[in-house]
Amino acid sequence: MDAPQEKLLFTPGPLNTSPTVKQAMLRDLGSRDDEFTGIVAEIRSELLALAGTSAEDGFDAVLMQGSGTFGLESVCASGIPADGELLVLINGVYGRRIAHIARTLGMAVWELDWDEDHPVAPGSVEEALVEHPEISHVAMVHCETTTGIMNPLQEVAEIVKSHGRHFIVDAMSSFGAVPIDMSKTPIDYLVSSSNKCMEGVPGFSFVLFRTEVLEATKGAARSVSLDLREQWKTLEETGQFRFTPPTHAILAFRQALRELKSEGGPEARGSRYSTMQEMLSEGMLELGFQPYLASEVQSPVITTFRYHKDSAFDFEGFYHRLTESGFVIYPGKLSEADCFRVGSAGQIGVEEIIALLVAVRTTLEDMGVTLTPV
Amino acid sequence: MDAPQEKLLFTPGPLNTSPTVKQAMLRDLGSRDDEFTGIVAEIRSELLALAGTSAEDGFDAVLMQGSGTFGLESVCASGIPADGELLVLINGVYGRRIAHIARTLGMAVWELDWDEDHPVAPGSVEEALVEHPEISHVAMVHCETTTGIMNPLQEVAEIVKSHGRHFIVDAMSSFGAVPIDMSKTPIDYLVSSSNKCMEGVPGFSFVLFRTEVLEATKGAARSVSLDLREQWKTLEETGQFRFTPPTHAILAFRQALRELKSEGGPEARGSRYSTMQEMLSEGMLELGFQPYLASEVQSPVITTFRYHKDSAFDFEGFYHRLTESGFVIYPGKLSEADCFRVGSAGQIGVEEIIALLVAVRTTLEDMGVTLTPV
Repeated sequence: MDAPQEKLLFTPGPLNTSPTVKQAMLRDLGSRDDEFTGIVAEIRSELLALAGTSAEDGFDAVLMQGSGTFGLESVCASGIPADGELLVLINGVYGRRIAHIARTLGMAVWELDWDEDHPVAPGSVEEALVEHPEISHVAMVHCETTTGIMNPLQEVAEIVKSHGRHFIVDAMSSFGAVPIDMSKTPIDYLVSSSNKCMEGVPGFSFVLFRTEVLEATKGAARSVSLDLREQWKTLEETGQFRFTPPTHAILAFRQALRELKSEGGPEARGSRYSTMQEMLSEGMLELGFQPYLASEVQSPVITTFRYHKDSAFDFEGFYHRLTESGFVIYPGKLSEADCFRVGSAGQIGVEEIIALLVAVRTTLEDMGVTLTPV
Repeated sequence: MDAPQEKLLFTPGPLNTSPTVKQAMLRDLGSRDDEFTGIVAEIRSELLALAGTSAEDGFDAVLMQGSGTFGLESVCASGIPADGELLVLINGVYGRRIAHIARTLGMAVWELDWDEDHPVAPGSVEEALVEHPEISHVAMVHCETTTGIMNPLQEVAEIVKSHGRHFIVDAMSSFGAVPIDMSKTPIDYLVSSSNKCMEGVPGFSFVLFRTEVLEATKGAARSVSLDLREQWKTLEETGQFRFTPPTHAILAFRQALRELKSEGGPEARGSRYSTMQEMLSEGMLELGFQPYLASEVQSPVITTFRYHKDSAFDFEGFYHRLTESGFVIYPGKLSEADCFRVGSAGQIGVEEIIALLVAVRTTLEDMGVTLTPV
């Protein structure tokens, strides 16, 4: 068995999971076994409860094999009718990806774009909906992992609803750590994944949805594997997945859900992440790294920093030295600024942030960078 | 921690994996980490070697998130050009599923059908190809999990090649236990999954393919998530997945590959499965269960049995009593016969087959079934 010293992940996911979450995978369960189908049913109902809703309120939850992108594509591929037209609100890579998915599926797609350091502006969304009655669905990323920016979920949800359109939310980097109450925030489809703020292992995504909306899309499926409606119908009728589920990742997720509850739910987890994020931001600023976003729009989950201004700094060298010291950070994905990202999510706490800051300082010193606070 | 007495799985997958395969998942690796990308590269090249080929011979291997069906859909969604027409050879549920996938993607689809206990007849395939020059691709399931029947891979592959068409093989229930040599058997796309004869955990599928064939499909993608060509190009350029990979399932798979090698490769594994399958068939026959298939076309991996003729036998009761005793078998999927299935794959051996046969006998006695050998 390999047993190397493990590196700490300061990444947007996969991230550090607890030992007990990983140990839950040490079992082989049959995918049609009553115990396994019971676990899937438990997970579906717990996910609804986490979002402040339930089957009785007209919502349901479905797991979909693959990463978060697969879950998003399943919504586009079967949750939007054949004649649907989708408006995508874009201020980063993940918003752009939704538009790309919908176009590839042959859908009519509209786009509203903002700079990557600007949150979605609800007023512009309202104008677009008034001007274009042909738009039937609106999609927005809640926390854009590209930068870590938070978009105004409640305001946009209310505008979309008041104009009688359907709202799709990519909550990949928020669900589990940023409280979302679907009984108060009108959302038709919310997509997230097993391995981000939920602190499970990667292997599937999940979709929470208004049942009457998905019900109405019968016959619209543009994919078999990613047919969300069929996945739902089969789970309802048989308790089973249509195609082989990632049984081990699902066992880990059940344990992760229990640990989220023990921690005190999304509010407590979000507060832990926020404490880490603030400590990280302050510490990095002292070392000369300017955060890319204004603090008002910064999420607790991931922070983008601009490259150090000192000419001795080069990111590749910095990244590899940090990795060798046991700290994995994340490259940037911005089109218009040289930057990198550091996650403050998963099974880490202030001690790990302090250790990271010490390692960053040492690495900069080794590189000959002058540590002038910004 | 849950630590119940584990049930033995006699299912087509997920199946029993070794403790060391599961223990390999007790690590969190970053998806962009050099160690992880190195593991993915190792797996890709080992898969090619298992199939008797290599990158130098013009082949490559790509992992695709999701179950085997996702892998098959990725071939249909991006490995067949826009004007391609697909002939599907069908003698079970999984063949039918390929046709359904291709139709849902908007493709022109042809079908040749056989009864579920009849293997694909190469002569009829040749006639269809001669008669319909518009057919560009042919798809066949190697071992139909519906019944466990083996289809004649070499003969059909040679016919398809000799008529200048492309050949897609669903090797879900064969790859890893039935030797396949792509240097001798002309195949353009071979799809299999992590959790069947490879004895890994579920979470992804993989596609082995002739690079010049996939290369030529540029611009044909009908899906973003299931774009096999993009998945390949990105892996080649960056070593990374486009979207979050199931890192833990991939760690388990690397270990499973090593254990397949230690066992002596697909030939040795197939021989172990065959011994179990023969013992299972003989033992069940003595208890009054007639195998559905003739032994000449029976695979070593999964066996279909007709229901017991005794009026005291009912399958639901039988299945649940066996499960309670710790033995998980698999229901049937045949349209035209009452039957069930028993797998002889995964980390089990003759001792487990003997234990199963004892449990079946006890269960039948408890149900009041008269044990007349067929």
